[in-house]
Amino acid sequence: MGRSALDAYSNGAVWWDTQISGIQKNEIIIRGYPIEELIGTLSYSQMLYLLLCGEVLSDKKARLLESVLVAGADHGPRAPSIAAARMAATCGISFNSCVATGINVLGDIHGGAAEKAMKLFYQTNTLLAADPNKSLSEVVAQQLDLLQQSGEKLAGIGHQLHDDDPRIKRLYALAEALVEEGEISGTYLRMAEEFRSQLAERKKRKLTMNIDGVAAAIQCELAIPAEAAKGVFALSRGMGIVAHAFEELQNQVLIKGPCPNRDDLVRYSGPALRHLDPADRE
Amino acid sequence: MGRSALDAYSNGAVWWDTQISGIQKNEIIIRGYPIEELIGTLSYSQMLYLLLCGEVLSDKKARLLESVLVAGADHGPRAPSIAAARMAATCGISFNSCVATGINVLGDIHGGAAEKAMKLFYQTNTLLAADPNKSLSEVVAQQLDLLQQSGEKLAGIGHQLHDDDPRIKRLYALAEALVEEGEISGTYLRMAEEFRSQLAERKKRKLTMNIDGVAAAIQCELAIPAEAAKGVFALSRGMGIVAHAFEELQNQVLIKGPCPNRDDLVRYSGPALRHLDPADRE
Amino acid sequence: MGRSALDAYSNGAVWWDTQISGIQKNEIIIRGYPIEELIGTLSYSQMLYLLLCGEVLSDKKARLLESVLVAGADHGPRAPSIAAARMAATCGISFNSCVATGINVLGDIHGGAAEKAMKLFYQTNTLLAADPNKSLSEVVAQQLDLLQQSGEKLAGIGHQLHDDDPRIKRLYALAEALVEEGEISGTYLRMAEEFRSQLAERKKRKLTMNIDGVAAAIQCELAIPAEAAKGVFALSRGMGIVAHAFEELQNQVLIKGPCPNRDDLVRYSGPALRHLDPADRE
Amino acid sequence: MGRSALDAYSNGAVWWDTQISGIQKNEIIIRGYPIEELIGTLSYSQMLYLLLCGEVLSDKKARLLESVLVAGADHGPRAPSIAAARMAATCGISFNSCVATGINVLGDIHGGAAEKAMKLFYQTNTLLAADPNKSLSEVVAQQLDLLQQSGEKLAGIGHQLHDDDPRIKRLYALAEALVEEGEISGTYLRMAEEFRSQLAERKKRKLTMNIDGVAAAIQCELAIPAEAAKGVFALSRGMGIVAHAFEELQNQVLIKGPCPNRDDLVRYSGPALRHLDPADRE
Repeated sequence: MGRSALDAYSNGAVWWDTQISGIQKNEIIIRGYPIEELIGTLSYSQMLYLLLCGEVLSDKKARLLESVLVAGADHGPRAPSIAAARMAATCGISFNSCVATGINVLGDIHGGAAEKAMKLFYQTNTLLAADPNKSLSEVVAQQLDLLQQSGEKLAGIGHQLHDDDPRIKRLYALAEALVEEGEISGTYLRMAEEFRSQLAERKKRKLTMNIDGVAAAIQCELAIPAEAAKGVFALSRGMGIVAHAFEELQNQVLIKGPCPNRDDLVRYSGPALRHLDPADRE
Repeated sequence: MGRSALDAYSNGAVWWDTQISGIQKNEIIIRGYPIEELIGTLSYSQMLYLLLCGEVLSDKKARLLESVLVAGADHGPRAPSIAAARMAATCGISFNSCVATGINVLGDIHGGAAEKAMKLFYQTNTLLAADPNKSLSEVVAQQLDLLQQSGEKLAGIGHQLHDDDPRIKRLYALAEALVEEGEISGTYLRMAEEFRSQLAERKKRKLTMNIDGVAAAIQCELAIPAEAAKGVFALSRGMGIVAHAFEELQNQVLIKGPCPNRDDLVRYSGPALRHLDPADRE
Repeated sequence: MGRSALDAYSNGAVWWDTQISGIQKNEIIIRGYPIEELIGTLSYSQMLYLLLCGEVLSDKKARLLESVLVAGADHGPRAPSIAAARMAATCGISFNSCVATGINVLGDIHGGAAEKAMKLFYQTNTLLAADPNKSLSEVVAQQLDLLQQSGEKLAGIGHQLHDDDPRIKRLYALAEALVEEGEISGTYLRMAEEFRSQLAERKKRKLTMNIDGVAAAIQCELAIPAEAAKGVFALSRGMGIVAHAFEELQNQVLIKGPCPNRDDLVRYSGPALRHLDPADRE
Repeated sequence: MGRSALDAYSNGAVWWDTQISGIQKNEIIIRGYPIEELIGTLSYSQMLYLLLCGEVLSDKKARLLESVLVAGADHGPRAPSIAAARMAATCGISFNSCVATGINVLGDIHGGAAEKAMKLFYQTNTLLAADPNKSLSEVVAQQLDLLQQSGEKLAGIGHQLHDDDPRIKRLYALAEALVEEGEISGTYLRMAEEFRSQLAERKKRKLTMNIDGVAAAIQCELAIPAEAAKGVFALSRGMGIVAHAFEELQNQVLIKGPCPNRDDLVRYSGPALRHLDPADRE
């Protein structure tokens, strides 16, 4: 029970204690800065980073983070997050609740691959730092062995639709430009590429990075914690969710289901017609 | 039943028809633009506006919208949206679901005032356009009369904590600089101020604009539809929700309630102890 | 600001004050009753009614409420609530969050008709009580006139799929049996039927009550407040949402969208391919 | 990619295929039964079990499941699920969305212990079945050793407030009465008690079962899958969430935070006041 809020409180902790913001009458402090100095000065990605990580990102790094947010903003109404939000918009709930419906489903599987890849990348970097005699190539091989043994999939590689995703090249080019300028180290970009190429070699087929893989590498370059990645993606895909739910609201359709009422799309395959018989009860 | 999705489909409509994005193999089109041209070029607020409204906002206007997003990002753990997200983070659900929990409560009352003010502003502008003989002052007076008769509160004015909110002056200054540069018209900024000053005169007391009022005026200047305002705010406050939920996750507290277990904060005031009596059943 | 929690607190109110439950060490009181007397004694619908309305429903009335809960439990995967929950189950979030995703969309339009009908029924009853010279038939006619003038649809009548819904007859029969036994008055059942038949006569076509209309009449017979109806339905349809999300979880499908990736189901109808041109920016 | 919905569809699967319900014009089939036979015949817990598990539970077993649902219905406004739903009710969203807000937080930690305990119980039973020479006591000891080695806590034991929870004795008594009648086997009730007593002996202190532990044992007796437990609890605690959100709605308080605005409850402990300096940017 050492982690209960009640215990902490009885040991003198304040119930709601935060290092993020201080709110007093006519004063709003964000990570030490008065809000009026941030408004009109910081971009969206700088504000997000300040709130999340505590410091102000350089303009160049902030634009790189903004590129990641822009890249993931939408993937059309067949993404469950977008479809759920659009359907919500036909059901008569508050617009923000439609948006929440979409964001609620951006979990471990739909949108969560970046977090998984970031954990692997950070762990790989720790292994590298711990043993200076080992090369990146050796440590990546060792990590792929472990994944293979556990039967786990490498996150951030491959896509069910794209095999030459236009977002990847563009994000890589933007990130590499910052490496050349010395703004970021390039450690994680090289690492992600090493994972991809070694896996392709093992599988003997073409394998491409996906949007989660690149987003993971860039977020690692910016020292964003892996556990925060789903929140970052919620604000990226959140843009598409807002736009799609709004389009559906304007359509003024009532109670829209996932697809038309057609037998080739919806089917009942349970028990045939039967009747209640007390003798059947378990 | 004229608004049912089934009817539209049987009349030839495609089930999921969108003007926002087209997704094909290795091709992602957003409002006509290939995504790779947008990444690294558009800022967050430009991408949001493009998705939501269909066109690319000028850089100066985009920075003004970004200012609105930054201004509303956080108001501390006593805001229900932030508190709900922080509590969620102690309950063992996916991080994105913590974020959705916070966004879900940004409804008509908590975060919805901008929408209400925007509807009033757009309607006031329509009235002005319809009768060129009437001055802004006359139409605003007439609108305040109507509000008074219906007993409705004017949205966007007054705050339970601040009476000189540091965000307001800053946002007004940024917006007015764009009016002087001819980027925006200033129509809605003047209108909001006219509403505020006339109401203060009627009430015979100092009244200040609140963050929702300024945000409403600026969003009207940018032609954002009133009905979209809750979505815009979800992505603004979403930053604070992400950061606070993440801070709480890192605290690793288990099942944190809203406040300590103290009799001065939580009380049962229902019927005194009683026992089930079949005769009591209604 | 007379309705702010801060004002109430500064006037001596306890922050969390409830008449529903009192929790102390080894003691849980629900509306005055010790929880151990309720467990194994009250049915689900009795417990719900006790929590919501404060008293214990008779066994017969409770079974009638249970019938309403059972009747609305499921309407297949084409209902947006069910589809959203099933899609959520393929996205990697906590099972309860899948359930919440489904319940979140049971709003004014999808599931909200009972509340609307209940408001009309209670208001009609108040009008009847206020003028003893008017018959049910006259007051219903007057209410239909008002609805017609305002262009509003009568809630609780008609269904996009069923025109002889098997749930309706059964619920009516169960309710009428209780009228005959004197358990409920029958006032609202007769009123709902009067609305249906008068509207059918005006429209000169067959019109049937829908599940929301019968559920509304029965809930009025049990004195459940109209504003609570969406919560009651959340626990009714909640059963179907739980079962469908669970079935989808067991399927172990990853990221399931609303429908297959077919051009006749999903279409982009926005601007044709174009390129960013600074001159285009608004 | 073997688990993608697209792959299954291209191999001939129907997109929405369900064994739960079949909906046709004027026909609703639930697990084979026409809905009109279920309404007024099945109790809430029987309907839930039929939807979730496919068969009709005997009346006695159904009453035992109903007891579990009643027992978990409420634990007052200090539970995060209840507090989140009450705060939502002051923010201006649809009532069902308030309910969803509460259910959304019933995750692995807050409400998830039953699932964890059920997994352990089912696994323990499998081990017992696999080796007929081992006694329950031996297998439980072995399982506790494994838990101890992995540093994991035994779910279902201990409570931060109660040490003699009135719900536990009552539920145990009801369940044991069914064992005596031969309705259920008692296997899991004995197993849960064996876990509790062995752990108490190891820890050399009094340890009590908590509500999740008993609920887990009873659900195992009824063959409910462990992975479904969070959904069952959502419908149990859902009753309390509905009632509390409704009480808050009736209070008509606007934007209620988690606690009063007092320095001993809310504190900013981040960096002291500072100003933006371009040189500081990372």
